[in-house]
Amino acid sequence: MRSVLLVAAAAAAKQPPLWPLPQNYSCSTQKLTVIPSPAFFRVDAGNDVLAAAAKRYIPLAFPHGWGAPGVGLPALSVVVDDGVGATERAARRPRRADDAGALYPALGDDESYKLRITATSATLKARTVWGALRGLETFSQLVAYNFDTATYQVVACTIQDAPRYPHRGLMVDSGRHFLPVATLLHVVDALPFAKLNVLHWHLTDTQSFPVETPSRPSLWRGSFSKRERYSVEDVKRVVERARLRGVRVVPEFDTPGHAESWCSGYPGVCPSPTCKTPLDVSKAETFAVLDDVLGDAAKLFPDAFVHLGGDEVDTSCWASTPSIQQWLRAVLRARNWTTADAYSYFVSTAAKIARSHQKRPIQWAEVFDEFGATLDKSTIVHVWKLSTNITEVVENGYDCLVNVGYVADSWYLDNLDVTWAQAYASDPRATVPPHLQTKVLGGHGEMWGETVDGSDFDATVWPRLAAIGERLWSSVDDVDAAWPRLEAFRCLLLERGVGAAPLNNSMARAAPVGPGACTQRRRRI
Amino acid sequence: MRSVLLVAAAAAAKQPPLWPLPQNYSCSTQKLTVIPSPAFFRVDAGNDVLAAAAKRYIPLAFPHGWGAPGVGLPALSVVVDDGVGATERAARRPRRADDAGALYPALGDDESYKLRITATSATLKARTVWGALRGLETFSQLVAYNFDTATYQVVACTIQDAPRYPHRGLMVDSGRHFLPVATLLHVVDALPFAKLNVLHWHLTDTQSFPVETPSRPSLWRGSFSKRERYSVEDVKRVVERARLRGVRVVPEFDTPGHAESWCSGYPGVCPSPTCKTPLDVSKAETFAVLDDVLGDAAKLFPDAFVHLGGDEVDTSCWASTPSIQQWLRAVLRARNWTTADAYSYFVSTAAKIARSHQKRPIQWAEVFDEFGATLDKSTIVHVWKLSTNITEVVENGYDCLVNVGYVADSWYLDNLDVTWAQAYASDPRATVPPHLQTKVLGGHGEMWGETVDGSDFDATVWPRLAAIGERLWSSVDDVDAAWPRLEAFRCLLLERGVGAAPLNNSMARAAPVGPGACTQRRRRI
Repeated sequence: MRSVLLVAAAAAAKQPPLWPLPQNYSCSTQKLTVIPSPAFFRVDAGNDVLAAAAKRYIPLAFPHGWGAPGVGLPALSVVVDDGVGATERAARRPRRADDAGALYPALGDDESYKLRITATSATLKARTVWGALRGLETFSQLVAYNFDTATYQVVACTIQDAPRYPHRGLMVDSGRHFLPVATLLHVVDALPFAKLNVLHWHLTDTQSFPVETPSRPSLWRGSFSKRERYSVEDVKRVVERARLRGVRVVPEFDTPGHAESWCSGYPGVCPSPTCKTPLDVSKAETFAVLDDVLGDAAKLFPDAFVHLGGDEVDTSCWASTPSIQQWLRAVLRARNWTTADAYSYFVSTAAKIARSHQKRPIQWAEVFDEFGATLDKSTIVHVWKLSTNITEVVENGYDCLVNVGYVADSWYLDNLDVTWAQAYASDPRATVPPHLQTKVLGGHGEMWGETVDGSDFDATVWPRLAAIGERLWSSVDDVDAAWPRLEAFRCLLLERGVGAAPLNNSMARAAPVGPGACTQRRRRI
Repeated sequence: MRSVLLVAAAAAAKQPPLWPLPQNYSCSTQKLTVIPSPAFFRVDAGNDVLAAAAKRYIPLAFPHGWGAPGVGLPALSVVVDDGVGATERAARRPRRADDAGALYPALGDDESYKLRITATSATLKARTVWGALRGLETFSQLVAYNFDTATYQVVACTIQDAPRYPHRGLMVDSGRHFLPVATLLHVVDALPFAKLNVLHWHLTDTQSFPVETPSRPSLWRGSFSKRERYSVEDVKRVVERARLRGVRVVPEFDTPGHAESWCSGYPGVCPSPTCKTPLDVSKAETFAVLDDVLGDAAKLFPDAFVHLGGDEVDTSCWASTPSIQQWLRAVLRARNWTTADAYSYFVSTAAKIARSHQKRPIQWAEVFDEFGATLDKSTIVHVWKLSTNITEVVENGYDCLVNVGYVADSWYLDNLDVTWAQAYASDPRATVPPHLQTKVLGGHGEMWGETVDGSDFDATVWPRLAAIGERLWSSVDDVDAAWPRLEAFRCLLLERGVGAAPLNNSMARAAPVGPGACTQRRRRI
């Protein structure tokens, strides 16, 4: 163990204390004093995202107050320049914006940045505000407080950085346990610390339907209780908090399986009171409700994607419900269908409805396993089973998201025996031919909520999600070199109020085994 | 089980949805609409504590935004009147205040309040700002958001309330694991939700000395790492956050045992490099360092109390260290002492030093077990062992704090097998003769930190600390009646971002066992 420690320490010595590691960096050992002030981050005041970030990153970079007076770097200049001339820019509309012109992040937005810190100046350049946010996070991690001198220090560095994957996310499940808005805001705050940019919000499941859908106001009768609900205003708060952090929020309404909770408000969309799911494929009402739900979602969630679920559909209720049997017999006869085709009909109709609301559908990989190459090419295939042949998915032209451990362990964070090192060893495109690798958009830590609520969310998710974050952003894969940096990042998460569990747990979210440092190695100074 | 549920539900129906339950209340079932606004809480603008509370309680009472327009109660008038005439008040200094005149809470401050909510007006009256804070918390818990109508509602109530015990606290241990400032601020935010008013901050222990002591700047070399430290500014932030919430912060510097971390900075105060603790009783340097530490603490912590520890002192290092042996032989001969007297000498000297800094000492009950009635009468005895005879303590004139389960289980929150119901069944003064019960000031949930850091703090502490909170505030003791109220309070804690664990865990801080409501009972509406 001693030799492993020494090797890790040597590798770490060459890497700056950043998580995730930038693509290119050159850092000296020269420590520079930084003089904090409320106006430290000099940004374009006309941009609301940057203005909010400049304020937010003051306590993140300078968590111990203003420190002792001194001489040093007084500012970080943040410059966003998309390389487009002013005239041309004026003629363009923002790529994705709400009615008030607010900028939203979108898949593929340029998140690159350049950070240059010298003894005389510090400059951050990016082509978009989202790149600037990533650079601000990097800068905040480079700043260290020296308790002995009561000053903040950075090392002189030149960093050029950009993500490996454009889609880097966390799925949260508010169907199995209600996750209060406070928890969601806290999650959204933490994602950018690991340069994650997507919150995939699995809103509903068999156990509960917590969210308000104004056109179908009875649906949230399927909530666990009258207080365990999200109003439209609640959702807006989460989306706005995410937007300001460059985090996309992709809602999921999982159908036709995982949807028993829909029956509370609209019993008509379910096969029968005793056999409730999958939703009734035979009724127009089912698709009318889904259309309304996705229409409401399209208004609430500015993201270009919507997740339609489609997983784990057991069609036995369809087979056993007389009215559906009758419909099935009729259409099967008329169109030469099998029951499996009825499933395909459901999920393809759902996808059409999504597209009619100008949303690109994501569906769990069963839809590909079922349709193969006949699936609409705009669909994003969310691969979660080892049995799905990912190479086949991308060869057939589909973009995909991957959480499967083809080469190591999966990114299912509710699997408590997956260690951070195992998650770190996975790579979504590891088994995909080089010329098709860009079809793999990225992946998620998947936080299924059966045993997760606000009481254990952080410790279940972190620090393993950070390991996933580095995998998706950086081009390094050395677990030994990552280890001390991740330990330090865990300390940072704790300092920022994120309850990341110890790294060396036998099982995720287990308590620390005894007294010790945040790195779990007692260090005497 | 069904009959228990029914009984509990019946009892709960008579109680308003408040935790802890007020001493006196009369609530109708009439629901009144409340119209939220940023100026809803009308307070005396000249008082910084109340002004901050009026702002803070807006999102706590109205967490789902401003709701739909409507007609209803537009304000809660908050009146603080100490019954003293203006002339007399002008002549008085605040009881405890810093140089800038800021008010601090103190033991015995009047926390009573009267809350009256009718169809036409809502008024909160208190004799101190602290009472007003308690009443604001009560009001915020009475407000419920109706998702269906998008309006806030309260029931018409008349409440007269005051605490049973003046000292209601939580001990946190930043010696075994560093608790970041973010964690401490979060803890301080949550204490008033359960009407707790003391944070007992066990700052140092054998494993680490994380806090800055400006007169003895080498002491925090005993921190776990260079980043796991509290600067003076950090401590000030915690104290100020607490002050604004009516929470006293009582620091503890535990000596002469539990103090090995002191040796890192000042090896001279420890017997020897191989036998480090208890601190060296024979050296003037030991008491000079302690004097400086307590002097620094007196400047940082405005509270009238300081905790000196004094527990679990194994004097074998004194017996085995030649220089201490020599000193012991000399003083034992001169004063007819035993080695136990040397322990008494240490802790009584510590108490004298505390008093010289105008602080009243709290010490763990070993000091009483050792001194008996010769202990200085100003000392507060902190009883933590069943072997301490609490009746004897109070009969001898000492005030005390109690976490021992004389009649049920203890309030050691790191004992994971203590359920909320067992904690609830304990009462600090249960075994004390009626005429001496006021000598029992109250008690704490004791959160020893061996397996607790920022990753599992909330789930370890809550909801059991809430059970302790009601015990210390209210005059009820019916577990069945408390149960549904505590379940609802757990939901509230989660909604406010506090990670309270499920109530019916087999062990504290265990994860939810499966999908379900925050109350763990699946409720269809």
